[in-house]
Amino acid sequence: MTTAKYDVLGIGNAIFDVLVRTEDDFLRAHGMDKGSMALIDEARAAAIYKAMGPATEISGGSAANTIVGVADFGARAAYVGKVKDDQIGRLYMHDIRAAKVAFDTAAAAGGPATGCSYILVTPDGERTMNTYLGAAQDLSPNDIDPAQIAASSFVYLEGYLWDPKDAKDAFLKASKIAHDNGRTVALTLSDAFCVGRYRGEFLDLIRSKTVDLVFANEAELQSLYETDDFDKALVQLRNDAKLAVVTRSEKGCVVASGDSTIAVPAFPVTKVVDTTGAGDLFAAGFLFGLVRGVNHEQAGRLGVLAAAEIIQHLGARPQTSLKALAQKHGLPV
Amino acid sequence: MTTAKYDVLGIGNAIFDVLVRTEDDFLRAHGMDKGSMALIDEARAAAIYKAMGPATEISGGSAANTIVGVADFGARAAYVGKVKDDQIGRLYMHDIRAAKVAFDTAAAAGGPATGCSYILVTPDGERTMNTYLGAAQDLSPNDIDPAQIAASSFVYLEGYLWDPKDAKDAFLKASKIAHDNGRTVALTLSDAFCVGRYRGEFLDLIRSKTVDLVFANEAELQSLYETDDFDKALVQLRNDAKLAVVTRSEKGCVVASGDSTIAVPAFPVTKVVDTTGAGDLFAAGFLFGLVRGVNHEQAGRLGVLAAAEIIQHLGARPQTSLKALAQKHGLPV
Repeated sequence: MTTAKYDVLGIGNAIFDVLVRTEDDFLRAHGMDKGSMALIDEARAAAIYKAMGPATEISGGSAANTIVGVADFGARAAYVGKVKDDQIGRLYMHDIRAAKVAFDTAAAAGGPATGCSYILVTPDGERTMNTYLGAAQDLSPNDIDPAQIAASSFVYLEGYLWDPKDAKDAFLKASKIAHDNGRTVALTLSDAFCVGRYRGEFLDLIRSKTVDLVFANEAELQSLYETDDFDKALVQLRNDAKLAVVTRSEKGCVVASGDSTIAVPAFPVTKVVDTTGAGDLFAAGFLFGLVRGVNHEQAGRLGVLAAAEIIQHLGARPQTSLKALAQKHGLPV
Repeated sequence: MTTAKYDVLGIGNAIFDVLVRTEDDFLRAHGMDKGSMALIDEARAAAIYKAMGPATEISGGSAANTIVGVADFGARAAYVGKVKDDQIGRLYMHDIRAAKVAFDTAAAAGGPATGCSYILVTPDGERTMNTYLGAAQDLSPNDIDPAQIAASSFVYLEGYLWDPKDAKDAFLKASKIAHDNGRTVALTLSDAFCVGRYRGEFLDLIRSKTVDLVFANEAELQSLYETDDFDKALVQLRNDAKLAVVTRSEKGCVVASGDSTIAVPAFPVTKVVDTTGAGDLFAAGFLFGLVRGVNHEQAGRLGVLAAAEIIQHLGARPQTSLKALAQKHGLPV
């Protein structure tokens, strides 16, 4: 195993977020499942956007948010994801590079526009996402640079990659290269409905140890094992995965591995403004902790700290230095 | 004078804001005048953007911000400004229409991209703007619909319109139509450097009563009369203008007309996050007050309330209902 050039490399759907505050009525009127991510086509994207109020735009994408968080903590980070070379794609590329993340995936010259997620944020801070994948659907194994993967200590993949047609193959290619080079592979289950779409394949990935570390929230965990019983599902995940972390919103998280389960309380927040990116930033903190070699409890604390930062403002990219925040709270950086 | 269809119609440079939090060092390193608006060409825009951190995008444009505020208070509003029919232009058009503002200016099919302002927000909340006018520079008298102007009680114009080559003629055309139809014409001086560029012409507009109402801040007022003496400049403006309102940041505003001067204190704020749009939203509240026929002191209170809302978050478009806010504070709506 050679010295790593990157601490964490993430692969995901590169998505530009179009965020709007709205009332619950809007979700009902448009048949949206509150709190979920729904894939939409161009026509539905246009209809939702037309009905939406004035928006704020901030780069997003689940794994991209995580990777930006990892970089913000001070680790060396890289991202692989597909945008188009259009105005929005150029905003996206600027933002991720400006966050000190290496980003070399070739932007598509033609084809669909850069992907956008129309995110409705209700007064309780919950976010409901409607994602038009656009150019992200063309991520393929050709976008995976073996040398870059081999040089990354952790490779972080999002379950959402199962949606676009060739991204799954990119995922599996990256995972194999990583393991061939003694690296660690992490997966986030992304969304309960996403787990519903690919339950069998996700279980295979975990049980075959194609992934070493699994991130999930309660809803995703329960969808994975088709049960309402959290404790029972957690035991199953602990048996299936080498290492698993389950986030539980205001109850913090649990880290499960072997025969141990560690619970870490949530970091207190004054007001939840927008939960977009909460899981993504949790993963950023936890992965950063592993990069620095801290124990699981400390890694969990870094995760809940980053999640707390992100839910106190609009959008899924940090507005405060996570490194400074961790230092302020006596956590390792 | 026929019944008005719109309470306030604004004409301005349609600009998409690209906002980033930064340190004062960045302004110094790039030779920027803190707190001002500088016009930049495409090459400088690219250089500044490349050096900037990750951004948040929110529609802007001085008069557009004002008009969105007027609509948010509950008045009938319209806007005239030029974007290109590109991705950013379409975001812009969505946002202004979603704010319930009538917006019918034809988007440019070719030519420069939709205008953008690269806005650096320093830790003290001050904003420094670098504006690439882009498509906004092609606003022309052809974009002025006489029937729409004639049907608007107030026509609000920004001094920034003196920068693009034909917008000045659009301004004068609109002003004449408005007066021919017994409407009121308002002008904001926009920026101290802008006043420096067009001092003589702005004074002519005011003294010839081409504009009935003038909005300025302290720096713009002092630039207009080339003096550091605020009181002296205020007396001059009171003599020159039919009605003038000068905003003074944390000191509130003064309304000057005839031989009277009314001071209104600022609305208290917890923390100044970003001053972008403070003057624009002040004007929104004041104009809305005039629309509702309240006295100058009450109109000033509506102004400082709207300004207080806008400086407590990033971007120059309201995030809280101004109408609800005014009601909460016992102001007329």
